[in-house]
Amino acid sequence: MSVGRAATRVDTPAKATGRARFISDVVVPGMVHAKLWRSPVPHARILRVDPARAARAEGVLAVLTAADLPVKDLYYGPAFKDQPMLADGVIRYAGEPVVAVVAETAAQAEAALALVAVEWEELPTVATLDAALAPGAPVLHARLVPAAHFRDLTALRPIPSTNVCHHWSYARGDVDRGFAEADLVVEQTFTFPMVHHYSLEPHCAIARVDGHGITVWASTQHPFPVRKELAEIFGLPLARVQVIVPYLGGAYGNKSYTKIEPLTIALALRVKRPVRLALTVEEAFKTVRRAAVRYRLKTGVRRDGTLVARDCEIHYQLGAYADVGPRVVQKSAYTAAGPYRIPHLRINAYGVYTNTVVSVAFRGYGVPQLAWAYESQMDVIAERLGWDPLALRLLNVLKRGEPLMEGDLPIDCDFAEGLGKAAAQIGWNEPTAAPRRGKGIACTIKAPLAPSVSSAMVRMHADGSATLLTGTVECGQGARTALSQIVAEELALPLDRVRVARSEVGMSPYDQATSASRSTTLMGLAVLRAARDVRDQLLTIGARLLESERPALTLRDERIVSPRGERTYGEAVAAHFGTGGELIGRGTYRGERGHAPLGGEAPFWEVGMAAAEVEVDGDTGRVRILRYVSVADIGRAINPRECEAQEEGAAMMGIGHTLFEQMIYDGGQLLNPSLIDYRVPVMSDLPEEYRSILVENGDGPGPYGAKGIGESGLIPTAPAVANAIARAIGVRITDLPMTPERVWRASDRARRRAAPAEGPST
Amino acid sequence: MSVGRAATRVDTPAKATGRARFISDVVVPGMVHAKLWRSPVPHARILRVDPARAARAEGVLAVLTAADLPVKDLYYGPAFKDQPMLADGVIRYAGEPVVAVVAETAAQAEAALALVAVEWEELPTVATLDAALAPGAPVLHARLVPAAHFRDLTALRPIPSTNVCHHWSYARGDVDRGFAEADLVVEQTFTFPMVHHYSLEPHCAIARVDGHGITVWASTQHPFPVRKELAEIFGLPLARVQVIVPYLGGAYGNKSYTKIEPLTIALALRVKRPVRLALTVEEAFKTVRRAAVRYRLKTGVRRDGTLVARDCEIHYQLGAYADVGPRVVQKSAYTAAGPYRIPHLRINAYGVYTNTVVSVAFRGYGVPQLAWAYESQMDVIAERLGWDPLALRLLNVLKRGEPLMEGDLPIDCDFAEGLGKAAAQIGWNEPTAAPRRGKGIACTIKAPLAPSVSSAMVRMHADGSATLLTGTVECGQGARTALSQIVAEELALPLDRVRVARSEVGMSPYDQATSASRSTTLMGLAVLRAARDVRDQLLTIGARLLESERPALTLRDERIVSPRGERTYGEAVAAHFGTGGELIGRGTYRGERGHAPLGGEAPFWEVGMAAAEVEVDGDTGRVRILRYVSVADIGRAINPRECEAQEEGAAMMGIGHTLFEQMIYDGGQLLNPSLIDYRVPVMSDLPEEYRSILVENGDGPGPYGAKGIGESGLIPTAPAVANAIARAIGVRITDLPMTPERVWRASDRARRRAAPAEGPST
Repeated sequence: MSVGRAATRVDTPAKATGRARFISDVVVPGMVHAKLWRSPVPHARILRVDPARAARAEGVLAVLTAADLPVKDLYYGPAFKDQPMLADGVIRYAGEPVVAVVAETAAQAEAALALVAVEWEELPTVATLDAALAPGAPVLHARLVPAAHFRDLTALRPIPSTNVCHHWSYARGDVDRGFAEADLVVEQTFTFPMVHHYSLEPHCAIARVDGHGITVWASTQHPFPVRKELAEIFGLPLARVQVIVPYLGGAYGNKSYTKIEPLTIALALRVKRPVRLALTVEEAFKTVRRAAVRYRLKTGVRRDGTLVARDCEIHYQLGAYADVGPRVVQKSAYTAAGPYRIPHLRINAYGVYTNTVVSVAFRGYGVPQLAWAYESQMDVIAERLGWDPLALRLLNVLKRGEPLMEGDLPIDCDFAEGLGKAAAQIGWNEPTAAPRRGKGIACTIKAPLAPSVSSAMVRMHADGSATLLTGTVECGQGARTALSQIVAEELALPLDRVRVARSEVGMSPYDQATSASRSTTLMGLAVLRAARDVRDQLLTIGARLLESERPALTLRDERIVSPRGERTYGEAVAAHFGTGGELIGRGTYRGERGHAPLGGEAPFWEVGMAAAEVEVDGDTGRVRILRYVSVADIGRAINPRECEAQEEGAAMMGIGHTLFEQMIYDGGQLLNPSLIDYRVPVMSDLPEEYRSILVENGDGPGPYGAKGIGESGLIPTAPAVANAIARAIGVRITDLPMTPERVWRASDRARRRAAPAEGPST
Repeated sequence: MSVGRAATRVDTPAKATGRARFISDVVVPGMVHAKLWRSPVPHARILRVDPARAARAEGVLAVLTAADLPVKDLYYGPAFKDQPMLADGVIRYAGEPVVAVVAETAAQAEAALALVAVEWEELPTVATLDAALAPGAPVLHARLVPAAHFRDLTALRPIPSTNVCHHWSYARGDVDRGFAEADLVVEQTFTFPMVHHYSLEPHCAIARVDGHGITVWASTQHPFPVRKELAEIFGLPLARVQVIVPYLGGAYGNKSYTKIEPLTIALALRVKRPVRLALTVEEAFKTVRRAAVRYRLKTGVRRDGTLVARDCEIHYQLGAYADVGPRVVQKSAYTAAGPYRIPHLRINAYGVYTNTVVSVAFRGYGVPQLAWAYESQMDVIAERLGWDPLALRLLNVLKRGEPLMEGDLPIDCDFAEGLGKAAAQIGWNEPTAAPRRGKGIACTIKAPLAPSVSSAMVRMHADGSATLLTGTVECGQGARTALSQIVAEELALPLDRVRVARSEVGMSPYDQATSASRSTTLMGLAVLRAARDVRDQLLTIGARLLESERPALTLRDERIVSPRGERTYGEAVAAHFGTGGELIGRGTYRGERGHAPLGGEAPFWEVGMAAAEVEVDGDTGRVRILRYVSVADIGRAINPRECEAQEEGAAMMGIGHTLFEQMIYDGGQLLNPSLIDYRVPVMSDLPEEYRSILVENGDGPGPYGAKGIGESGLIPTAPAVANAIARAIGVRITDLPMTPERVWRASDRARRRAAPAEGPST
C-alpha cells in the first residue's frame, strides 16, 4: 500500500542535499543577461528613449525598447492581449518595464540601466478603485483584444469607455422581494488589500532560439498554456515551442500563465544569443500581486435565522493589465454568497483597471477576498439575531446533495460534519480562559478549474521500475510524491522504483495547469489510468506466461501472481519483448464539465473550514493566535502528512494577509516592495497550537475518492480570526490586514463608545 | 506525399547555422573535468601509483586509480565483463587508462597528468594473431564473466586457457567430399587491417549524480543498453538512470554500447561534482578500432562454374578486451561464405585477444573484412576458370526465395537485377579506354540485428502539429528526417509541422539501438504504428464531428475530410478535449525473429553491390578510381537523396580502408594515432564519377516496403576496387590497404615475373 501512507517526499533527497535543480541552476551555454529599466512613474506618455550611453557601456549587447523587439504582436495576456512586453508608448504603472538591456553579464546589464535616458510626460494617475470608477476618469485601455485562450469561457464583458474590463453578473429569485421579506438586513462593505505572493524564487526565464524553434526554461505553473501563447506570438507550430520547467521555488499563482517569457524570447531573437532574465524579489513585487477587493455585501435574514436574500457587489482592483483577472472575477464571484442556502441572490462583479501592479492568479483565486466578507457578515448577523455563530451556519449551510448553483455539481461534502469537528477541536462551547480572548469559526467554498484536461504516461522498464511522464509542475506542493504513490499503488511497486520525469512540453504529455488544487485529483486520474493501462498489459502477459485466466491474477510485490505461479515484472517484460523493451501506459482525464452558468459542472467542490482562538493585547493591539484548527474535506488523503502540510502552509499564508500583509500605495507609488517593509508571517506569528483535520469519506472524483486540497486552508483564515477578534474585543473590523495599530484603534474606539463619559483609561 | 521525396533534412537549419547542440556544447553547472593517464606500455603489472604530486597540483580535486573508484564492480562490457574502468593491477594495451585526474579545468587536469607517477613491471606482449595463438602464449584474461546482455544470444564459447574468447562454428553438407568433387580448389589467405572509425566527434560523457539517480550526457548510439549496464554497475533501478544523447558528430559503431560512461559516473560519485570526460582524437584512437581479420578461405568449384564447397577459417584480432567482438565474430561469420549457393560449407570463426586497442562495432559489423576475401576470391576463381567474373557470380548467386541459411529469411531481393544495373552503369562489357585500367565488381550480403525492439510515440498537439518521441539517435545519418517523413505521410502533415524530440531514456520510449541499418526500417515501423494510432483517433473523432462513417473519411492537408465536410486537426482536437489537450499515439516493433542458427530469422537482408573502374599509375602505384557505382536493394527509399548520401558516404569510407587506412602497430605500440599519420580519404581521393543506384521493389518489411541502408555501401568497396586493380595490373593483392607502395611492389613483382630475363624497365 502506497496510497494513504505518509511516504517521504520523492524530492527530499535531492532537495535536502542541495542537488535539486531550480531554474537559477540552469546554465545555457552562451547565455547573456537581461535587465529591465522600469518606470518610476505610474502613468505617462513616453516621449523619447535614448539608448546611446547605455549601449556603449561595457559588455552591453543591446538596449531595446518595445519598437526594437522583433515580434509581430507585442501584446500578450490570458484574458485580453493588453499587456506589452515592454511599455508601448504609454506607461501604466510604476515599475513597468520600459527598456531592456542585454549584456554579457547580469552586473553589466544592471550597471547600464543607470545610463538609459527616458523622457516622459506624466498622465493623471488612477491608483484606486474610486479614482478608476469616477465619472470622467482617464481610461487606461482604449481598446481590448480578447485572447484566444478565453474564447471558450463566458464572454468577457468590458464596460465601454470605462476602466471596467469585465462585468460578471448572476441572479436568481427576486432579491428585492427577499429583502422585503427579511426581518433583518445587514449591509457592510469589506476590503481586502493588495498582497504579494512572495515565493522564495522570483520569476526567471532563459530563452534559446535555434533551427528547431524556441526553447524556454521558465518558472511557470502553466507550461502548456504558455507554449500555446508563445506559439501564437512567435508564429510557430506548438511542436516547435519547448517549455521546460525545473523545480519551482514556490508558485502560488504568481507563476501562472505567461509572464516574462515572451520578452525573454524576443530579446534572444534580437541578440541571437540565449538570454536569461531573472527578476529580483523587488521586481517580483512590481510584476504580480493579488487583486484587492471591495465587497459591498447586503444580506436579508429571517428572525428564525434563515437567510433569504443576498446582494453582492464586488469590485476587484486588478491593476494596469488584466492578466487572468477577469477570470478570477467570474470564478470567485460565482461562489460569492458562500456555501449557504439563499433563495434570492444577485451578484455583480467588476474587474477594474488602475495604475498599479498587475494582479494575477493567487492561491484561492479571489475567494479569500470574498469569504473574508461573507463569513465576517455571518457573525454580524448571528450577533444581531442573538444566535450562536456556529448554529447560524449549521442552519443555513448547504447539505450534501443540495445545489449551490443550478446545473452544477450538488454539494459533495458534509459541512455540518466539518464544522462540528472544527468546533469540537477548538472547544467551541467552553468559555474562554481569560479576558480579551475570543473564538471564531468560518466555513468556505471554492470552485475548481473546470473543464480541464490532463494526460499522463507511465513507462514500465525491463527491470520493473517505472517512469511517470506528467506535465504537472513540482513547486513544493508534493505533486510528484502523490502522483508517484498512485503509480506505486496501482503497480504494486515500492515508491523508490517510480520516478517522475521533469515537466517539459516537448516530452511530457499535455496538462492544462498546475493550479486550482487539481493535480492530485485530476492529473491523478490521468496517472491512475496510465498506470492501470500498464497493469492491464502486465496481466495480459502474465495470463499467457502463467497459463492462467486474467481474473485469477493479481499484482503483488513487483510480481504477477497466480495460483499457478508467479513472474517478476522484469521476467514478464523480458518474456514479452525477448530482448529489451518496456510497456507504455497512457491515461487522460478529460473534464467534460465546466461550471454552470459558466458552462458545465464542477468535478468537486473545494471546501475549507477553520476555527481560531485569539488573544488581543489591549495595550498594543497585537493578536496572538492561541489555537487554530483547519478542516479540509478531501475525500481521501493520498499522502496524509503532505495534506496536513498543505493545510498548515495555507493557514500560515492566510495569517499573512489576515494580520500583516499589504502592498501600500501612495499616489501610484508602491512604498513597500521589499521584505524589509512588507511584512510576511514569521515562525513566531504562527498559532501556538495548530491542528489540521482531514475529512476522508472517499467521496471525491479523484483517485481512491480524493478531492483537491491546497487552497481551502487559506480561505477561512481571515474571517475565522476576525470573528475571534470581534468576540474578544467586541468590535468588528472590516478592513484587512488586522494590524496591531488597526486592532488597537478599533478596540480603543469601542472602549470609548462603551464608556463615553469616562476619561482616558489608565 | 512526404515519403519518397528528397525532403530537406529536418536538422539542416540548426546545423547550418551552427546552433545544433552536440555533447561538446553541453555545460552542466558545477562540472569539473577529468583526464586520463594512459599506459605507455602494452602489457604490464602495475606495481605502484603515486598520486601525491599530481594531487597537489593547482585545481586538482582527485587523482584516482581503479581501487579508488566507489563501485562494487569495476568491470563492464557487452559480451564479457572483462574491461575495467581503469586498469586493475594489469595493463593490457598501450593507451589503456590507468589513473584519472579530476580538476576544476581540463587544462589543470591535463597538466597534472605529467605529475602522476606509475611504476610497472612489463609482461611479454602479445600484439599479433600469431603471437596470441602460439602455444604457451601469455593468456590475457584468465577468467571471463559473461555479461547479462549476451545471455539470450548464442552462448559464448571461449577456448579455455587460450586467448580465444569466442569460437563460432557452422557446417552443412560434407565439405571434404565437396572439395573432392570439385574440379578446382582455390585456397587463399586475406588480411584486413585494424582501422579506426574516426568520427569528427570523439567520445565524451558528462555525469551528474543527484538525489534522483544518475544522469549522463553521452555520445552513444545505444542509450538504452547503456542505461541497462549503468543500472547494473551502480545498483539502481532503470528508472533512476538517465542517458541523454544530443546530436552525435558521427557514429559508426565507435559509440556503440558502454564506453567511458561508467568511469565518468564513478568519478562524479567520488568527487561529488558533475564530471566531464572528453577524449581527444588521439585518445579515441586508443579507445576503439575495427577488428582486424585473417581469413583463410578455401573454395571448391566445378568446371561448369558451380561452387560446391567452401571452408572458412576466420580469426578476428579483437584487442585487449572483448567489447562486442564475440558478437561481431558470430554475426559476420554467419554470412562469411557470401550470398552464394554452396551445398558444402564449414565456417570456423575465432575472436582473439591481443595487447592492442579494443575492437568494437564498426559500420558493416565484421562483414567488410569477410566480403573483402570472398569477393576477391570469386574473381580469382573466375580467372582460373576463364570465366567472366560477373557471369560467375550470376551463376552462383542466390535467387529471391532461396535460403541463405536454413530456417532464416529466404533471400528477399534480386541480386541478378542489382548486378546487372551495376554492370550496365560501369560499362562492364565495354573495353577499358587505356592501359593499366580495369573494372571490378562485387556482391555482398549482411545480416541485420535480430531480434530487436523499438517503440515510438507520436503526440498531436492542439494545433495539429506533431512531436515524435523516439530513442533513435541522430548521428548525421538523417534518421530524424526519415522518421519525420513517415509521421508527415501518415498524418498528411507538412514536414515542418513534425518535430523529433531528442533521445533521452527518461523521456523517449525504448529503442534497442541506433545501429545495424535498422532505424528507418524497424524504428520506422514503430513510428508508423504510433502515427497510425493518432490517425485512428483522428478518424474516430472526425466520424463523430462530421457524422460520417469511418471508411468515408480521409486525412488531407491537415484536415479530416468526408463527403459531409471537413475539420482541421486543430478543430478536431479542440472538439474532443474542449479546452486543450493532445492525442497520443504509440507504436512498437517487436522483432520475434533472430537468425537461425543464431535463433530465428532476419527481418530483411542488407545487400550491397558495387562496380569500380580504376587506373593504376605505373610509376607510383597510386590508384585512381575513375568510376564507381554502388547499388543498394533498399525496398523503398523514404528519402531518396538521403539514401544516396548514405551510399556515397559508405563508399567513401570504404575507399579509406581499401586504399589508405590502417593502424600500424610495432611491438604493441600504435605508431599512428593521429590524423597526421593516419590517412583518411580526402576529397581528391573520391571517384571521378560516382553513381548510387537504389533498387526499389517495395519488398522490405519496413514502412512502405523499406529495407535498411547505410552499411551495404561500405561492404563491396574493397573487393570491387581490388578486382579492378587485379584486372588493371594482372596481380592479386590479398592484404589491405592497397597503398601505392603495396600496389607498386605487387605490380613490379608481376612485371618481373612476366619478363624474368629483362633488366629493369626504363
